[in-house]
Amino acid sequence: MTNKPQVLSDLEIAQSSTMLPIQDIAQRAGIPEDALELYGKYKAKIDTTKLAHKKAQAKVVLVTAINPTPAGEGKSTVTVGLADALRQLEQSVIVALREPSLGPVMGIKGGATGGGYAQVLPMEDINLHFTGDLHAITSANNALAAFIDNHIHRGNELNIDPRRILWKRVLDMNDRSLRHVIIGLGGPAQGVPREDGFDITVASEIMAIFCLASDYVDLKKRLSKIVIGYTYDRQPVTVKDLAVEGALTLLLKDAFKPNLVQTIEGTPAIIHGGPFANIAHGCNSIQATNTARKLADIVVTEAGFGADLGAEKFMDIKAVQGGFEPSAVVIVATARALKMHGGVDKKELKASNPQAIAAGIDNLQKHVETIRQFGVEPVIALNRFITDTQDELDVIVGWCEDNGVKMALTNVWEQGGKGGIELAKNVLEVLHTAQNFTPLYQMNDTIENKVTTIVQKVYGGKDVVFTDVAKKQLVEIKKNGWDKLAICMAKTQYSLTDQPTLLGRPENFTITIREVIPKLGAHFLVCLTGDVMTMPGLPKEPAALRMDIDEHGNAVGLF
Amino acid sequence: MTNKPQVLSDLEIAQSSTMLPIQDIAQRAGIPEDALELYGKYKAKIDTTKLAHKKAQAKVVLVTAINPTPAGEGKSTVTVGLADALRQLEQSVIVALREPSLGPVMGIKGGATGGGYAQVLPMEDINLHFTGDLHAITSANNALAAFIDNHIHRGNELNIDPRRILWKRVLDMNDRSLRHVIIGLGGPAQGVPREDGFDITVASEIMAIFCLASDYVDLKKRLSKIVIGYTYDRQPVTVKDLAVEGALTLLLKDAFKPNLVQTIEGTPAIIHGGPFANIAHGCNSIQATNTARKLADIVVTEAGFGADLGAEKFMDIKAVQGGFEPSAVVIVATARALKMHGGVDKKELKASNPQAIAAGIDNLQKHVETIRQFGVEPVIALNRFITDTQDELDVIVGWCEDNGVKMALTNVWEQGGKGGIELAKNVLEVLHTAQNFTPLYQMNDTIENKVTTIVQKVYGGKDVVFTDVAKKQLVEIKKNGWDKLAICMAKTQYSLTDQPTLLGRPENFTITIREVIPKLGAHFLVCLTGDVMTMPGLPKEPAALRMDIDEHGNAVGLF
Repeated sequence: MTNKPQVLSDLEIAQSSTMLPIQDIAQRAGIPEDALELYGKYKAKIDTTKLAHKKAQAKVVLVTAINPTPAGEGKSTVTVGLADALRQLEQSVIVALREPSLGPVMGIKGGATGGGYAQVLPMEDINLHFTGDLHAITSANNALAAFIDNHIHRGNELNIDPRRILWKRVLDMNDRSLRHVIIGLGGPAQGVPREDGFDITVASEIMAIFCLASDYVDLKKRLSKIVIGYTYDRQPVTVKDLAVEGALTLLLKDAFKPNLVQTIEGTPAIIHGGPFANIAHGCNSIQATNTARKLADIVVTEAGFGADLGAEKFMDIKAVQGGFEPSAVVIVATARALKMHGGVDKKELKASNPQAIAAGIDNLQKHVETIRQFGVEPVIALNRFITDTQDELDVIVGWCEDNGVKMALTNVWEQGGKGGIELAKNVLEVLHTAQNFTPLYQMNDTIENKVTTIVQKVYGGKDVVFTDVAKKQLVEIKKNGWDKLAICMAKTQYSLTDQPTLLGRPENFTITIREVIPKLGAHFLVCLTGDVMTMPGLPKEPAALRMDIDEHGNAVGLF
Repeated sequence: MTNKPQVLSDLEIAQSSTMLPIQDIAQRAGIPEDALELYGKYKAKIDTTKLAHKKAQAKVVLVTAINPTPAGEGKSTVTVGLADALRQLEQSVIVALREPSLGPVMGIKGGATGGGYAQVLPMEDINLHFTGDLHAITSANNALAAFIDNHIHRGNELNIDPRRILWKRVLDMNDRSLRHVIIGLGGPAQGVPREDGFDITVASEIMAIFCLASDYVDLKKRLSKIVIGYTYDRQPVTVKDLAVEGALTLLLKDAFKPNLVQTIEGTPAIIHGGPFANIAHGCNSIQATNTARKLADIVVTEAGFGADLGAEKFMDIKAVQGGFEPSAVVIVATARALKMHGGVDKKELKASNPQAIAAGIDNLQKHVETIRQFGVEPVIALNRFITDTQDELDVIVGWCEDNGVKMALTNVWEQGGKGGIELAKNVLEVLHTAQNFTPLYQMNDTIENKVTTIVQKVYGGKDVVFTDVAKKQLVEIKKNGWDKLAICMAKTQYSLTDQPTLLGRPENFTITIREVIPKLGAHFLVCLTGDVMTMPGLPKEPAALRMDIDEHGNAVGLF
């Protein structure tokens, strides 16, 4: 929003836009009426069993970014704007996005529904409870936690070691006070005391499973595989052992159906699932992407954080498990963010500084190289801010020309799809050229090799070390036969390294794997590096302080 | 359900029933199309601002019961069946019910949507997430908790004493391990350590407020009044001090709209809100009841637990705050439950035992007297089970004749509305007779007098004692000027006394008030007696173990 002085807020723009009835959007997307379950006038769930006969064949365009900085990149905004631009060019297109988490919405100004004239609507609903999917995931997660503690309290037939429970409770809230708690206090009638902690809902393995499952049968099967902890004799305990996979699947019954909404310009948008991009893979659900692929010719979608995290996982986890190939990749960058990668302090961003951009552009360069390693040709979206000077833009444009990288200036915040036409034309060119997508690693390789491949090829690092704790976990994982799973790296999003302050394109660094956590339902192993935040806190002045409602029940002050 | 050997389950009956599109039900109820917000094909929210011009004038029929026993009474089933019977008699009727809590659904077999052929549909949706209202309340409750702990963590400008925080977190789950917890562990970055605990969502003051507020303005005003705790110098701290009442109201924006569904027979049902009947008042929302009163001639509604708790609070809290008068009261009783009040063990219920019924009927007698004290003539619904013998029924029928009490046998579980025709005719007779409703106490009376009135007139007790803790709280409450509020008794539902094992009609007993807790947003003072459970636990074999989903996403094994 920083490129618009004295203009309407995102909420004001959203509320002044005229939405089409969601039935009209469904018709535009080719969704039969009997597959539509309305949630108010402008939201609907899609019963995908009614689309079972259709073939998923649309091309997938992934929108990713350089390593994020406090300057902001506008990845969701560009994703929405690109879809609108493609529709202006008479393409059959659907945009597929993640569902926002309520916790950050209460904490920090700024939603996850795009911005300006490149938003999905109704933004206030989508940013608040939407159709309740995250609440269903919270319920399923916490039901499982209650079943575990109840099992221990009532005799502990499975011999679960309360000191070795991996399953944590979750809330869709930024609540640091719940990170480390002791539960089960108060005497024998109140459960068994033990250390526990709460994550934010989007960090739940159930969210990851929800986003990777292909249908109800797969969903239940994956849920049954979750390892909730270990017995006193170190044997894994799964959801299947507790016999509650049916109940958990039932709790996700309606949530599992993808949600249909629209952009300000009336482009169909499917918004479904939103796993963290650190502890999980950071993309919307496979259900959503593959449903969109049945309906349109082009699906525009995004992945969390920068290309080192989001795009890598999109390629190696989501595309592989979802059975599709990305056909084009957009890397979003801004002059402001490149200046920060070039060493400029946040407070100095207003001053023109082409030299800093020249210094910071190697971060962008690394991501361009990374995407090419996956066999896909990237397009750079240089997302304009009004503070950008021509000298600054010239550095980036020149670099792209010198390096043979497609690029386009975008201004979708102000102009909607019109501001993304040049980008859309570039993307269409790539889509008309055969790509050669290949995941970076084979599942059958060793864990060490898979991690090293990611570190060297994606982060540009030298090597990997595992802590003693992680080494012990590797032994356990191999013993249990869990080593042929994908790798889900949990790393700071700010740097290519595991140190958040090392911007630009560091070299010769080592990545330390602190822990390796099996997520059998998600079919991946989480490799934790550095400090990974799975329960955010609120700032001193939460965004909630500005929120209100008028007497007719309309949102006020939400972004 | 126990009166039906080898028959379909509630879920099977529900799934084999044909529902009308909810638009048809809305039309039947006289709800204009522009006031309807669909949630799937068979649920809708009602935008009550579109009904602002209509006058709420329907007569209200309250369904209550004797003190509940493990034998079961079937209050919700009779409520639904009575509404269906009234519609069969060509009355304009809407049934208004509470929303089920997910926690108990996962724990104990048996939902809150009626049973057999007297159910509201779609029962699986209503019993699971429904339209997300309870999740919105959970979110608002826990957002407030996070704001409180964040405030303390970030400097504690309001000087809140972490040892004197009244506000607890909630989950809509039966989870005993969360009753007593310590939060904020892990060092200075993880909040301030303190004792805390979780209640079940329906015990949240926000649920009570939600059910008592008349509109958005009132909702926000009530939320702002919540006392979250005290400062180090013992001054109350409110939501207004934290300046988050706008955000909390915003989180309840859509939840606050009443939900429309239908009974198996197609009678319009409005289901909205569901506060605990111990720590809160145990009735559906005033929004729901008054919306129904704008649409129909008769509203049939129920209150939680027995008449000593649910009906008393319905009369003294809900009717007073909602501005209406109950015009008839149904007291549900069963032969089986009266036998238990007469001293029979649960295992011996199958044997005919007219003597035990004669001994236990004084429990029913007390509730008849209580309802008459409110100026309303009760009708007894004797809900039949197939194990009932004629001798047993004769005792009850004879007692009713001898005491001039209207009564009807009901068999709505098996027959739907047809099984409630006799009851409906009795209710209509009462509705055609002028009643003289009067609340039991005046708000301006002292707390001690108000509590004594309830204990003597409703419970039939001798007197009241306050513990030293409660006495101190009374001093504080009077000092703060909070003593003119309603009284919300939190007492065991099983007995007229504060001892759950004393069935029948005990006499000459004393009620001990352990604590008096101000709930300023709900406009009542909770008087705690005995042990009041605000976070249930799961049984050894939770109902969840039987739950499942088929490959098409249909519920299996849910009741």
